[in-house]
Amino acid sequence: MKHSLPHPDINDLTMSEKVRPLLDKVIRHVRDNCDPVLEEFQSLDAQKSDRWSWHPRQLEIMEELKSKAKKDGLWNFFLPNAETGEGLSNLDYTYIAVELGKNPLASKSLNCSAPDTGNMEVLERVGTPEQKEKWLKPLLNGEIRSCFGMTEPDVASSDAKNIHTRAVLEGDEWVINGEKYYISGAGDPQCKIMICMVLTDPDAEPFRQQSQILVPMDTPGVNIVGPMCVFGHDDAPHGHMHIKLENVRVPKENILWGVGKGFEISQVRLGPGRIHHCMRSIGSAEKALDLMISRGLNRQAFGKRIIDLGKNMETISRARIEIEAMRLMVLKAAKAMDVLGNKEARVWVSMVKAMVPEKCCQIIDQAMQVHGATGVSQWSPLSEMYTKQRTLRLADGPDEVHHNVIARAEVKDFQSSNDRQSAMKNTLGGKLFEGP
Amino acid sequence: MKHSLPHPDINDLTMSEKVRPLLDKVIRHVRDNCDPVLEEFQSLDAQKSDRWSWHPRQLEIMEELKSKAKKDGLWNFFLPNAETGEGLSNLDYTYIAVELGKNPLASKSLNCSAPDTGNMEVLERVGTPEQKEKWLKPLLNGEIRSCFGMTEPDVASSDAKNIHTRAVLEGDEWVINGEKYYISGAGDPQCKIMICMVLTDPDAEPFRQQSQILVPMDTPGVNIVGPMCVFGHDDAPHGHMHIKLENVRVPKENILWGVGKGFEISQVRLGPGRIHHCMRSIGSAEKALDLMISRGLNRQAFGKRIIDLGKNMETISRARIEIEAMRLMVLKAAKAMDVLGNKEARVWVSMVKAMVPEKCCQIIDQAMQVHGATGVSQWSPLSEMYTKQRTLRLADGPDEVHHNVIARAEVKDFQSSNDRQSAMKNTLGGKLFEGP
Amino acid sequence: MKHSLPHPDINDLTMSEKVRPLLDKVIRHVRDNCDPVLEEFQSLDAQKSDRWSWHPRQLEIMEELKSKAKKDGLWNFFLPNAETGEGLSNLDYTYIAVELGKNPLASKSLNCSAPDTGNMEVLERVGTPEQKEKWLKPLLNGEIRSCFGMTEPDVASSDAKNIHTRAVLEGDEWVINGEKYYISGAGDPQCKIMICMVLTDPDAEPFRQQSQILVPMDTPGVNIVGPMCVFGHDDAPHGHMHIKLENVRVPKENILWGVGKGFEISQVRLGPGRIHHCMRSIGSAEKALDLMISRGLNRQAFGKRIIDLGKNMETISRARIEIEAMRLMVLKAAKAMDVLGNKEARVWVSMVKAMVPEKCCQIIDQAMQVHGATGVSQWSPLSEMYTKQRTLRLADGPDEVHHNVIARAEVKDFQSSNDRQSAMKNTLGGKLFEGP
Amino acid sequence: MKHSLPHPDINDLTMSEKVRPLLDKVIRHVRDNCDPVLEEFQSLDAQKSDRWSWHPRQLEIMEELKSKAKKDGLWNFFLPNAETGEGLSNLDYTYIAVELGKNPLASKSLNCSAPDTGNMEVLERVGTPEQKEKWLKPLLNGEIRSCFGMTEPDVASSDAKNIHTRAVLEGDEWVINGEKYYISGAGDPQCKIMICMVLTDPDAEPFRQQSQILVPMDTPGVNIVGPMCVFGHDDAPHGHMHIKLENVRVPKENILWGVGKGFEISQVRLGPGRIHHCMRSIGSAEKALDLMISRGLNRQAFGKRIIDLGKNMETISRARIEIEAMRLMVLKAAKAMDVLGNKEARVWVSMVKAMVPEKCCQIIDQAMQVHGATGVSQWSPLSEMYTKQRTLRLADGPDEVHHNVIARAEVKDFQSSNDRQSAMKNTLGGKLFEGP
Repeated sequence: MKHSLPHPDINDLTMSEKVRPLLDKVIRHVRDNCDPVLEEFQSLDAQKSDRWSWHPRQLEIMEELKSKAKKDGLWNFFLPNAETGEGLSNLDYTYIAVELGKNPLASKSLNCSAPDTGNMEVLERVGTPEQKEKWLKPLLNGEIRSCFGMTEPDVASSDAKNIHTRAVLEGDEWVINGEKYYISGAGDPQCKIMICMVLTDPDAEPFRQQSQILVPMDTPGVNIVGPMCVFGHDDAPHGHMHIKLENVRVPKENILWGVGKGFEISQVRLGPGRIHHCMRSIGSAEKALDLMISRGLNRQAFGKRIIDLGKNMETISRARIEIEAMRLMVLKAAKAMDVLGNKEARVWVSMVKAMVPEKCCQIIDQAMQVHGATGVSQWSPLSEMYTKQRTLRLADGPDEVHHNVIARAEVKDFQSSNDRQSAMKNTLGGKLFEGP
Repeated sequence: MKHSLPHPDINDLTMSEKVRPLLDKVIRHVRDNCDPVLEEFQSLDAQKSDRWSWHPRQLEIMEELKSKAKKDGLWNFFLPNAETGEGLSNLDYTYIAVELGKNPLASKSLNCSAPDTGNMEVLERVGTPEQKEKWLKPLLNGEIRSCFGMTEPDVASSDAKNIHTRAVLEGDEWVINGEKYYISGAGDPQCKIMICMVLTDPDAEPFRQQSQILVPMDTPGVNIVGPMCVFGHDDAPHGHMHIKLENVRVPKENILWGVGKGFEISQVRLGPGRIHHCMRSIGSAEKALDLMISRGLNRQAFGKRIIDLGKNMETISRARIEIEAMRLMVLKAAKAMDVLGNKEARVWVSMVKAMVPEKCCQIIDQAMQVHGATGVSQWSPLSEMYTKQRTLRLADGPDEVHHNVIARAEVKDFQSSNDRQSAMKNTLGGKLFEGP
Repeated sequence: MKHSLPHPDINDLTMSEKVRPLLDKVIRHVRDNCDPVLEEFQSLDAQKSDRWSWHPRQLEIMEELKSKAKKDGLWNFFLPNAETGEGLSNLDYTYIAVELGKNPLASKSLNCSAPDTGNMEVLERVGTPEQKEKWLKPLLNGEIRSCFGMTEPDVASSDAKNIHTRAVLEGDEWVINGEKYYISGAGDPQCKIMICMVLTDPDAEPFRQQSQILVPMDTPGVNIVGPMCVFGHDDAPHGHMHIKLENVRVPKENILWGVGKGFEISQVRLGPGRIHHCMRSIGSAEKALDLMISRGLNRQAFGKRIIDLGKNMETISRARIEIEAMRLMVLKAAKAMDVLGNKEARVWVSMVKAMVPEKCCQIIDQAMQVHGATGVSQWSPLSEMYTKQRTLRLADGPDEVHHNVIARAEVKDFQSSNDRQSAMKNTLGGKLFEGP
Repeated sequence: MKHSLPHPDINDLTMSEKVRPLLDKVIRHVRDNCDPVLEEFQSLDAQKSDRWSWHPRQLEIMEELKSKAKKDGLWNFFLPNAETGEGLSNLDYTYIAVELGKNPLASKSLNCSAPDTGNMEVLERVGTPEQKEKWLKPLLNGEIRSCFGMTEPDVASSDAKNIHTRAVLEGDEWVINGEKYYISGAGDPQCKIMICMVLTDPDAEPFRQQSQILVPMDTPGVNIVGPMCVFGHDDAPHGHMHIKLENVRVPKENILWGVGKGFEISQVRLGPGRIHHCMRSIGSAEKALDLMISRGLNRQAFGKRIIDLGKNMETISRARIEIEAMRLMVLKAAKAMDVLGNKEARVWVSMVKAMVPEKCCQIIDQAMQVHGATGVSQWSPLSEMYTKQRTLRLADGPDEVHHNVIARAEVKDFQSSNDRQSAMKNTLGGKLFEGP
């Protein structure tokens, strides 16, 4: 981390004037369109014959929301500085992500759901015209959904060099064999395409061995074994699926950007996605804090409101401090992506990724404790909120991988900074106490 | 807490010689009888038509285990210093509880499951001959199971004075109305009797308002609304049920010990039960540590075994230290129950209850992190182990209630100890630095 | 805390363009003027006959630094939006405070030392023309120094209502009796004036009982008993003095602003001062991190650099994350003081005051651990840095008081926000799962 | 760590019957002989012309205490199972160490001070008859004192293989050159002998390179450079000295046990010494807790006793829990040394060494916070208590080294335990859930 400020505007975390009306429209869309239909939408889950499908009325509700959003000009604004969509800056998008975090239907109704946003960004940046026509266009139209095949069960995929799923070129086709798990969204019947990370050249240098290939979900050999659960939840019909790829054959042209570019493409996609997750996490922490306060005010024990017992007020204060600190860090990371070169911003992204879900878990856990047994039950959203944040500490690289990125950057900066090193020499050089 | 040792043997935490052969028999029973049938037993869950029932083969397996246990003289040894059963001391039972924690079928096969053990202890201590004949006898024979109706959804039941479920004497019958939740074991079709905490006299002094009444589960008005989930798990068919009591009528004689004795009976039951939980919790932490080590040794990332990365070795060391400290604390609390009066032991029980589940949660959480995404999935027992420990921080009084018990005892001891107070006067009286 | 942004610019944490040249001048002043003389200045401590005095050469060095600073136009810029001095905004001053934190002579050489800055601000805001002529003028000229008499040994002065030092009007004089301690700067022979918090009207309503009175240090009855030490350090000749006020008589006109205004004046002074402390704390944490890295890179144990052992890299990462989060929080609190009304900013100030010193203590402590025994010795600045931060957790209100301010504001905001409350109702309204 | 109990008595932590009268005598000695003279002894510090000396009256007081102790048969009982002295078991000695921790004169008055106890134990175990006659005898008589020269400033001495101080045999003499620091007790004018760890054979295998040599303090070339301070304290006249060894020549026979035995001797000495430290640390934590309660009961703020504010009661509870857990762990480690082979006990010693000082620091720090500014001042013993515990986290191997010992033992035990490994296979063998 540079101690000097590397860009004059890096600390201007203000939303841009031109996006403020868009934010207002999003707020109104969530409040006026999404909120009123949420309860109906969720209650339909119980009426489905197959939990891995959508109820026809659910599809209908979503289409109505989408058409309202499109009419309001709220569509595809996730791509930063892109020709397609609104081309919001990461900073501006961050403010909007907070609002999207407030209703589980909101993101999808604006075509801003994970993992589609990352997939669309990748296709937009490195896709061929044919790839864009075939997959990006229906994705941008919200006609289909997509997934990203990265994590594998048999290796520590936090180290991308471990990827074992093998793609071999046979004539005009890639033949793919391997096993993936935690493939989010692959359970959705609308999911039609997977961007799949594969090993194409085991003999190349470490970061040139992987490629990313477009694999239509209906290709023979793409076998969904079942859902991975998270603390017992299967998140149907979205799902985090366990998939075996057995002699899957796709055309040679389905490769993205080129052979050996797999790792490089990952760098493109991961920054913004992680930020979006973290901003929604902050929304989750806000909600946990409100639940904590609400419960604390409305329950009595030992003759006092629970909020007035023991350390509860300090817990509330610490939660508020951490939430504000997280919010500023996420805004700064977004701004860093906007104004700095990739290298510096990468460390900022790792900082929020390593910081936010861990602290959110703590805040939600404390809210649970204030709720007593209800806090872990289905009568409260807290346990589901907790499991989501807990999982984020493992997804897109576990905390430890990000801490390593940050620490190595820090040490390197120290080693290349004459100022920092010479200050150390002055500190330790003299002042030795000699003689009683 | 007294600083002086209040009983010459309080620190002798050795298992008694006479129980050692029993422990060996239990170890063999778990290993030779329970372990071989566990997989079959659990796989039968998927074949049941109603998840709130037992599969006929499951019942058969359990009966076989029970008869083997009885033949070996392993039956009902949970009651400390009792005429019934083996009459083990709490300390000796603690050593056995570790072994029972290793197989989920073990406790039941020896008739030592919660909440039956607590219920049987209460019936044995304060039941009338008629109550013992009708309910204790079949419980001791393992023919029926039981539940304990304490917690209520609408009040903070950590404060027993909040109990709202009302029992009114009408002629020869108690008429009961109210709502209970988290009634563990009430989902089991074998559960025939509930000991129910009720409010009998709102005008009495605070600790004389409650009574405990025997309520057969098939009494009209005992309506099971559904299961309470814990992080999404319903723990069927055992279950933690939500129950409404609507004009439930039971005979006058079903009261336990006497009107207004409800709080006093609770004191009897809670000590040993909490200790048993905590000893099994330590078994759970041991298992988490083994899973952590096993995973750390068998996975590679960034060219190293995961166990050799970052702080993982220190995490293992800290887990081992905490486990040994917890083990000694639980043994000491058990010994305190054996040799001290109730008052002092009550603080020891609160100490382990406030200490153990919180630390176990941390250890299991760290094991999860080492496992990556698998750690939170159904491929690992860790998430279920976590939710169990997390729930224990709320059951039988949340941590905060126990900390309050401990702190008040500590302050009271300070105030009544001339030694402690006069030492403080010496410390702060003099030594004022006066003048530069 | 409002969730909506209460001012359009509140998140613009950029330094103003016009102040950038001033910052550059400060950086050059510290580097070119202060740094070269520091070693000589500190070594003179050992040559003084009386440690509660300045060595003549020390005074000479300081006068040279001051005249250089004045020539460069670097003088008295601490007062926000003031006619006197540069009138920097709090935000801009925050950036400068970082640089001042890098050399212990820097603040004084620019006449920006505590507690003089707070005292000058108070005199500038509420002093009479006569008070300003007599005390503010020589303070602004750097001719004398001052102290602030707040804390008392016999009461918890974190609660201002506890102040016991009594001032009684007798004719044209205030007669003051009481005891103060931790009066920082009162050991300096240049300290000529104390602003003293006194109890003037015990019968008034709680926040109208106190007044602040100007007490010249040479008034008979102002008896310095000795220094208070902090972890054994007396910080001579600045000192944190223990003072008895025995029948001290000062003219009636020495009261500030008016009788009963004592508490109100405190509100004026405390905000900026706390922020300045916290920004210098961040400088201290940066230095600790650099020491940690430097030591870790330059020592070997068990065949590796210490930095590569165990959790050290993660410790570095976590320190960097916390430092950046603290920096942003301090900048935001400064901005809040600039653009918001006092009430909201007060909570932001409490947030940084409760957050920063505690986290800095942790970071410095970790740096110590990496240094081994040298870390706690006089060969490293770490132990002195630690004690300074540890003391800040108690000065200007202990952490607990600030957490209380924050939590009460949070609860109040929740209670007055329809949005936050109604969202809770939706969340908890239904008991979602009913029946098995 | 073995899960099975490796020795039938390992959990019997009861003091032996025969030692109980001795404990009573020690309690009376501390209360009746040491306590009444402490204030006079400490006040004499201010009257000494040279702070690195003893006041004649101080020497007189100490001699009186010693003769009283000898008359009572309280002398040299620290050696476990030794012919010399009482030969207490480690467990019994642990109970006595608690009492010795209550008065700073107590240990010395019974000839049980560090580092002499360790030095005497080493001499008793491995000294030649001549060495015993010359050094052990006057040490056992309390006529002289001693120090241990281990730590070096230029290397991480936590790794004994780093020792650089070189001893070369020239004819009949060892010639020693090197630098040591933190040599505790070397400031005392009564300190006559140092056991010095040196490098004798750099080409031997790692643990055969070091030796320990007896170096009389008055040997030419033993130059005390000055004291090392700890958070600013120099602990005169005991002192933790910085010593340069320049061409120091001692007779060949001064080697202990033999060339290359240095590391092996360290193993002998470190166990009991670490335990003694830790037991006194627990005494320190007890005192901090009493100070916390006493202050909390006697101060008011915001209309309540401080003890009733915020989290203070929970802090008290957590301190009590941790203290009891630490006490049991220290007792168990002492017992392990008594009944197990060295290898297993070594891990127990590391467990208490890594556990106790860290937790004591936390407890003392919390007591400080409750005291406000007085807590860090010379009016309270807390800051000195803190620095002592903080230093213990670095002495005799920093926490990290002990965690490493523990973790490696744990992993090794896992790897060699069929039970632990096969249980893991059962747990992870199946991927339980396959298919939606």
